[in-house]
Amino acid sequence: MKIGMIGGGGVGQTLGTALIALGHDVVIGIRDPSAEELAKERNMARPLVDWAAETGSRVATFAEAATHGEVIFNVTQGQHSLAALTAAGVANLGGKVLVDVANPLDFSQGMPPFLVPEFTGPTSLAEQIQAAFPEAKVVKAFNTIAAAVMVKPGLVAGDHDLFIAGNDPAAKALVTEIARGFGWAGFVDLGEVAGARASEAILPVWARLWMTGGSPLVNLKVARAA
Amino acid sequence: MKIGMIGGGGVGQTLGTALIALGHDVVIGIRDPSAEELAKERNMARPLVDWAAETGSRVATFAEAATHGEVIFNVTQGQHSLAALTAAGVANLGGKVLVDVANPLDFSQGMPPFLVPEFTGPTSLAEQIQAAFPEAKVVKAFNTIAAAVMVKPGLVAGDHDLFIAGNDPAAKALVTEIARGFGWAGFVDLGEVAGARASEAILPVWARLWMTGGSPLVNLKVARAA
Repeated sequence: MKIGMIGGGGVGQTLGTALIALGHDVVIGIRDPSAEELAKERNMARPLVDWAAETGSRVATFAEAATHGEVIFNVTQGQHSLAALTAAGVANLGGKVLVDVANPLDFSQGMPPFLVPEFTGPTSLAEQIQAAFPEAKVVKAFNTIAAAVMVKPGLVAGDHDLFIAGNDPAAKALVTEIARGFGWAGFVDLGEVAGARASEAILPVWARLWMTGGSPLVNLKVARAA
Repeated sequence: MKIGMIGGGGVGQTLGTALIALGHDVVIGIRDPSAEELAKERNMARPLVDWAAETGSRVATFAEAATHGEVIFNVTQGQHSLAALTAAGVANLGGKVLVDVANPLDFSQGMPPFLVPEFTGPTSLAEQIQAAFPEAKVVKAFNTIAAAVMVKPGLVAGDHDLFIAGNDPAAKALVTEIARGFGWAGFVDLGEVAGARASEAILPVWARLWMTGGSPLVNLKVARAA
C-alpha cells in the first residue's frame, strides 16, 4: 500500500521502517525537505538522510507525502498537527484513511507532559482534525504507546491492548489489519472519533508509568466484567 | 479502625458498608444531616436513613465524621471536595490518612463526563487537596473504578490494578492493606501525590469504556516491559 507519513521524528521513522518491512511504499513528509534539514537530528531520532539511505525511501514535503499516500499517518507533535495537515493539503487527504498518532502534549514544565487544554475537555485532537478535514477518515490509533511498541508489541509482556477510535468502520478495520501485521492481537474499539478523548487521556497515565516504572515499554490491558 | 466518610452518595455508602463488614467503625458525614436530608435519595444511591438502619451506623456532619475518623475518605464530587473538606475542618484532618476517591468531573454536557480544567494540566484534585491540607496524608486511590468494583474487585475478570499515589509511604501501605481486605491483589504505585494526575486522567478512559462496552464493571491492568 502507498503510505504518506506526515512527520519525520522518531514515531514517523519507526512506523515508516516497519511499514516498509511489511512491503508498503512509504514517503515521509516534512515541512522543509532541504538537504540541510535532512541532515539534522530530528525529535528523538536520527537524521532523515540516514533513514532514507537505510530504507531506500523518499523524504518529501507534507503535500508530496500526502499525495503519495493512499493511507496517511499523522505523526507530528499534536500542537502542530492541524498546521502540518493543512500544509499537506485538504484535497490530498480527502477520502483517505488518516491515522492520527499524535498527542497534544505540553512538555514546557518538564516530565511528565500534560495535555494542552484546547484539545481536552469535551474535545480531542482527533475530533478537531476530523472537523477540519471532513472528507478524511480519521482513525485515532497507536498514540498510547512508545514508538518501539507500536511496531513490536511483544516488547511489552502479556496481553495488552491497542486503542482505536474513528467514525468509519472500514477505516478502523484497515488500521486494525495494519496493526495485526505488526503483531498486535488485543484491540479496544473506543467507538467514534470522540473516543479519542479517552485514548489521548491515556498519555498522562503512560508518561507517569514510564517515570515511576523506569521504562517507556509499558501499556494497558482492559479488563471487563466477570 | 475508626473511619470518617466525607460524602454520602453511592461511593460513600458502598465503601462504608464494605468497611463495616470488615469490622471498621464508620461514620458518614454530609453537609446537612437533618431528618429531611437523610430521607432524600442521594447521588445514585438510596436515602441515608436506610443505609444507617441497615448498617447500624451513624450519619453526621462533615466535621463530626472527620473528628470520628482515624482515616478519612473523601467521596464527594470532585468540584465540591475542597469545600466539603474545609467544612470537615483542617484541624480534624491533620496528621490523618486522607483517602481521596473523588474525581473532578463535569457532566454538564452529558456522558461521558470530562475533567474540570482547573484540576487538570500540571495539577490534580489530589494535589490541590494536599496543598490545602498540608498536615493530612493524602492518598489518591479507588477513584478509577465503579463503587461496586472498589469493594469487590472480582466483579472484573482477570488481573487488574488499583492505582495509588501519595507522598507518605506508610499512608499508601495502609490504604493498600484496606484494599487487600476488599480482595485487591494488583497495585500500581504512581509515586507521590502528583501521580494523581495520571489516575484522575483515567476517568475519561473508564467512562468511555463503560459507554462502548455497556458495563461500568471495567478496569485496567498495567503491562510492563517483557
